[in-house]
Amino acid sequence: MNDIDIESLKGIANQLRIHSIAATTAAGSGHPTSCCSAADVVAALFFGHMRYDPKNPHYHNNDRFILSKGHAAPLLYAAWAETGLFPADDLLKLRQLGSDLEGHPTPRLPFVDVATGSLGQGLGVGVGMALCARLDKLDYRTYVLMGDGECAEGAVWEAASLAGVNQLNNLVAVVDVNRLGQSQATAFGHNLAAYKDRFEAFGWRTEEIDGHDMDEITEVLAAVGLGTQPLVILAKTLKGAGVSFIQDQEGWHGKPLSKDEAARAIAELQPQAKSGIGHSIAAPLALPAPANGAPASYPPLNYTLGESVATREAFGNALLRIGEVDARVVALDGDTKNSTFSDKFYKKFPERFTECFIAEQNMVGVATGFGARGKVPFASTFATFFARAFDQIRVAGISTANLKLAGSHVGVSIGEDGPSQMGLEDLALMRTVAGSVVLYPSDAVCAEKLVDQMAAHKGICFLRTSRPKTAILYGNDEQFPIGGAKVLRQSDGDKVTVVGAGVTLYEALKAADSLKSEGIGITVIDAYSIKPLGKDIIKAAAQKTGGLVVTVEDHYPEGGLGDAVAGELSAEGIKVHKLAVPMLPHSGKAEELLAKYGIDSGAIVKKVKTLI
Amino acid sequence: MNDIDIESLKGIANQLRIHSIAATTAAGSGHPTSCCSAADVVAALFFGHMRYDPKNPHYHNNDRFILSKGHAAPLLYAAWAETGLFPADDLLKLRQLGSDLEGHPTPRLPFVDVATGSLGQGLGVGVGMALCARLDKLDYRTYVLMGDGECAEGAVWEAASLAGVNQLNNLVAVVDVNRLGQSQATAFGHNLAAYKDRFEAFGWRTEEIDGHDMDEITEVLAAVGLGTQPLVILAKTLKGAGVSFIQDQEGWHGKPLSKDEAARAIAELQPQAKSGIGHSIAAPLALPAPANGAPASYPPLNYTLGESVATREAFGNALLRIGEVDARVVALDGDTKNSTFSDKFYKKFPERFTECFIAEQNMVGVATGFGARGKVPFASTFATFFARAFDQIRVAGISTANLKLAGSHVGVSIGEDGPSQMGLEDLALMRTVAGSVVLYPSDAVCAEKLVDQMAAHKGICFLRTSRPKTAILYGNDEQFPIGGAKVLRQSDGDKVTVVGAGVTLYEALKAADSLKSEGIGITVIDAYSIKPLGKDIIKAAAQKTGGLVVTVEDHYPEGGLGDAVAGELSAEGIKVHKLAVPMLPHSGKAEELLAKYGIDSGAIVKKVKTLI
Repeated sequence: MNDIDIESLKGIANQLRIHSIAATTAAGSGHPTSCCSAADVVAALFFGHMRYDPKNPHYHNNDRFILSKGHAAPLLYAAWAETGLFPADDLLKLRQLGSDLEGHPTPRLPFVDVATGSLGQGLGVGVGMALCARLDKLDYRTYVLMGDGECAEGAVWEAASLAGVNQLNNLVAVVDVNRLGQSQATAFGHNLAAYKDRFEAFGWRTEEIDGHDMDEITEVLAAVGLGTQPLVILAKTLKGAGVSFIQDQEGWHGKPLSKDEAARAIAELQPQAKSGIGHSIAAPLALPAPANGAPASYPPLNYTLGESVATREAFGNALLRIGEVDARVVALDGDTKNSTFSDKFYKKFPERFTECFIAEQNMVGVATGFGARGKVPFASTFATFFARAFDQIRVAGISTANLKLAGSHVGVSIGEDGPSQMGLEDLALMRTVAGSVVLYPSDAVCAEKLVDQMAAHKGICFLRTSRPKTAILYGNDEQFPIGGAKVLRQSDGDKVTVVGAGVTLYEALKAADSLKSEGIGITVIDAYSIKPLGKDIIKAAAQKTGGLVVTVEDHYPEGGLGDAVAGELSAEGIKVHKLAVPMLPHSGKAEELLAKYGIDSGAIVKKVKTLI
Repeated sequence: MNDIDIESLKGIANQLRIHSIAATTAAGSGHPTSCCSAADVVAALFFGHMRYDPKNPHYHNNDRFILSKGHAAPLLYAAWAETGLFPADDLLKLRQLGSDLEGHPTPRLPFVDVATGSLGQGLGVGVGMALCARLDKLDYRTYVLMGDGECAEGAVWEAASLAGVNQLNNLVAVVDVNRLGQSQATAFGHNLAAYKDRFEAFGWRTEEIDGHDMDEITEVLAAVGLGTQPLVILAKTLKGAGVSFIQDQEGWHGKPLSKDEAARAIAELQPQAKSGIGHSIAAPLALPAPANGAPASYPPLNYTLGESVATREAFGNALLRIGEVDARVVALDGDTKNSTFSDKFYKKFPERFTECFIAEQNMVGVATGFGARGKVPFASTFATFFARAFDQIRVAGISTANLKLAGSHVGVSIGEDGPSQMGLEDLALMRTVAGSVVLYPSDAVCAEKLVDQMAAHKGICFLRTSRPKTAILYGNDEQFPIGGAKVLRQSDGDKVTVVGAGVTLYEALKAADSLKSEGIGITVIDAYSIKPLGKDIIKAAAQKTGGLVVTVEDHYPEGGLGDAVAGELSAEGIKVHKLAVPMLPHSGKAEELLAKYGIDSGAIVKKVKTLI
């Protein structure tokens, strides 16, 4: 890379500008000025620095590029078009329903690893990829292009901190400091020193450059990888750079140029533009690919009926068990590993474990990065603290990421710690993620088998585990397919179908015993798969009990088990009565709280009696 | 404050330790070691430095204290007991169902402004309070006690940045650097310089002290308020400080001492302990209270039937309109104010507007702080970006905060920007917040009237607004009570009740016209109040259409309008059929997307025909 053709790179940068302007004008919307500010850096990265096979964007040792400032999507698309991956004419289909060149990048495109567009998320994903490169002994580097505005997001500093702590010198961030946000100037304008001080305090090497000076850009890129720290390049740029009448002006965020303006702009740029087609691109080294194949099966279980084991501990056991035979499995935690029991995995496989400290947004970002590199990442913390990372989880849904989340300490059954520690919203959150699978085991056998299912399933899966120990209900060979449900009690003449999961399943079983002694039969169903719901099983049972269903859940009434069952079965004429935690709960003993908030066996008995 | 009695403060610190140990041992759970590390600082703040009326914790010019490390709750409770606010014996009821001394602090207690316990949230609230003090021309200061572990949370750095930018020298953070997290040591241990560099880079004055040296503590406190920067005191401490056999040892996080251990610990501490009762506490200045009264009413509207106005713009109009007559109203935005139209308020009342930049977690924290000081804060951004702040919103629910959120750009109807910008989960999120009100206007009149309702209602309210312009449906005098719904079309013989809101309401009206031309009548309901739902109105209409309901929403199928209606009406025997965005959507034109994802008038017509 000693022989950089500076003039060509300048020309390609202008070609990328032209494409970005033409595409957004054709679309009638988009962010051309945010593309123009970063065009020189992107041209230098794609055509003068990064090592990758442009014909095979998925090649395992390609350098990775994450466009954290996802609204500059047309610039990314233009760069790949200029590598020759697809015809430049396609750029004019930007933002159309029939084109995968969407408003913000998604992995519908082969050169996009993760969706971006919700700002401040790219760096965390980059940290995950950089950690994964180390684990896999690959020398690819991860480049993250960020905006200056998004550096206000805390997620950026969570990621920056972990990168500094782990001395990720295979990670390079570029901040496109174009000074202008959407509605006004950023807090720091062109004061690069403000960013420099912050990144240095977080353990980074920093370089300040003029982001439109190709000599400076290529000079700092030549020194990538030196030293032990991650590198951030702070590029002073102008929004709309290269186009005289929009450059560095307010009021141009997220606005396409009119056809006339675009023609003027392109006329300005054209004399200095050059196609990237045919320009040489550095090839990656042909290092061995990581062993990312799935095993044929996972080892069997060895629980005893009647034994009591918390599902959170079963999660820890399962992680260790599958980790033994599946090299793809990696784990992450947010300083709760002795409560979620991910420490079992950590002790055995420390090199495959990332302690993310108390920074859940970044934990999910890092996990998403591992998933994008072929791993099966399990991230764990208290269920309610995944709320902190919900935007990352939402965007992981858009990324169709392979991401496994295990949330412990759900509901009022945690007891004395009080509502701030209780997962009472997590089912609602996780159900609403695009393409998600939401699982809620009651016993350890089910929990372990569901972890096996999560590892085998490609996509976002959430496992809801409980704090209290619960009795083993199932034999070690029981199967728990995603989308299933188990009928645990059922007799002819049952009056009501009670659907529970987690601690409430045991309350339902107790209620069944109690009602049976009074001559009232109820069907009891374990809804271990909340999404997809075991709809047909519940429906069939409900139809045998006159269409009467009671759901009982250690969760708020909105968006959880009850809404899931009602939302699916109401149309079938099933009457669903919900028992759930109806208000902000208090600290107290678990059994007191289950009773007070009406989700214990007594409440179920009472409800059933009102219905028959 | 020149005459600090150092020996007394040391004694009170030990008394607080004794209470913390005794209370957690009595409860059988809790975090005594996390209390002990901060006991000296808390004793110095409460009994040697802060200015407040201990008999009136709500007094408007009291210094504020936020225990961001909420797990040290027993220390906070002990301090207030030692001021004489309540009997020290009550401390032994810690974590019991009958006591408001919960596992983590909640505003059920008069001296707690906001719930804490989800780490990293206190500083943002403190920034809001400090900004509010300036607005109200009061000289109270805001103190935030943080743990070192929670400094890994990005929310801390969002808050730190805004405090630095606004030069909040009335804000003081104390970081209790006790080195030990829950599951292992923090990333930086006792390296105070790591924290010092970070806070300085974020614009803060820093002081490093031995957090167990009362001379050092009181010396730095004496210099609070000097200069123009916020101050952070970095206190090097030992977890479990003061008790020889637990001090600075791993494995003691979140564990109470046994009765024997507690007795030994208390025996060590007792000789150096002193009660705080009767100790003089500095009084606050008697400055005038802010005008935080609600107006008798809000000004009328002036829209014209048939005119087209986006509900997001109506939100901006309403904010300005009520801001004119209600001095309590303040606004915050995250660099989207020209899209959410909060810029209308900003231009008129810049001193009551806080630009939070792209940092949504902190925006919600700051708003919560304003609310805790008697303001009516409206925070706005794209609806989907409130996902970023969901943990702050969840905890605001525990705080029973007075917080108003307005989220724009919902659903596929935003069009070309693609799924990362589309609010498709926000109803599920906001419905599941304890005590929340969730509103979804279709036209500008309804949007404005709902803003009036939000301002008048004490609690968390979310307003969901749309990007496209929509026709005015209602007269300027129409009333929209929270919990209501509007029947827009209804005739004898209607076959199905269609419930819509936002853009889908217009699709339902179009479908009604189309079906009417074929001789099929449908009832159309505007469900502008999603939570509480206008259940009785929908139920009454549904019963007239044979129990058949179709819901149609620009949201994912989980947790939104359809689940809300099914969850409430299924038990009544109503059959609810849901139309919602069934999968991850694509970029495209709004009308194309409404059709592709089956929520336009054509889809409604088709669905109705399959049902009759």
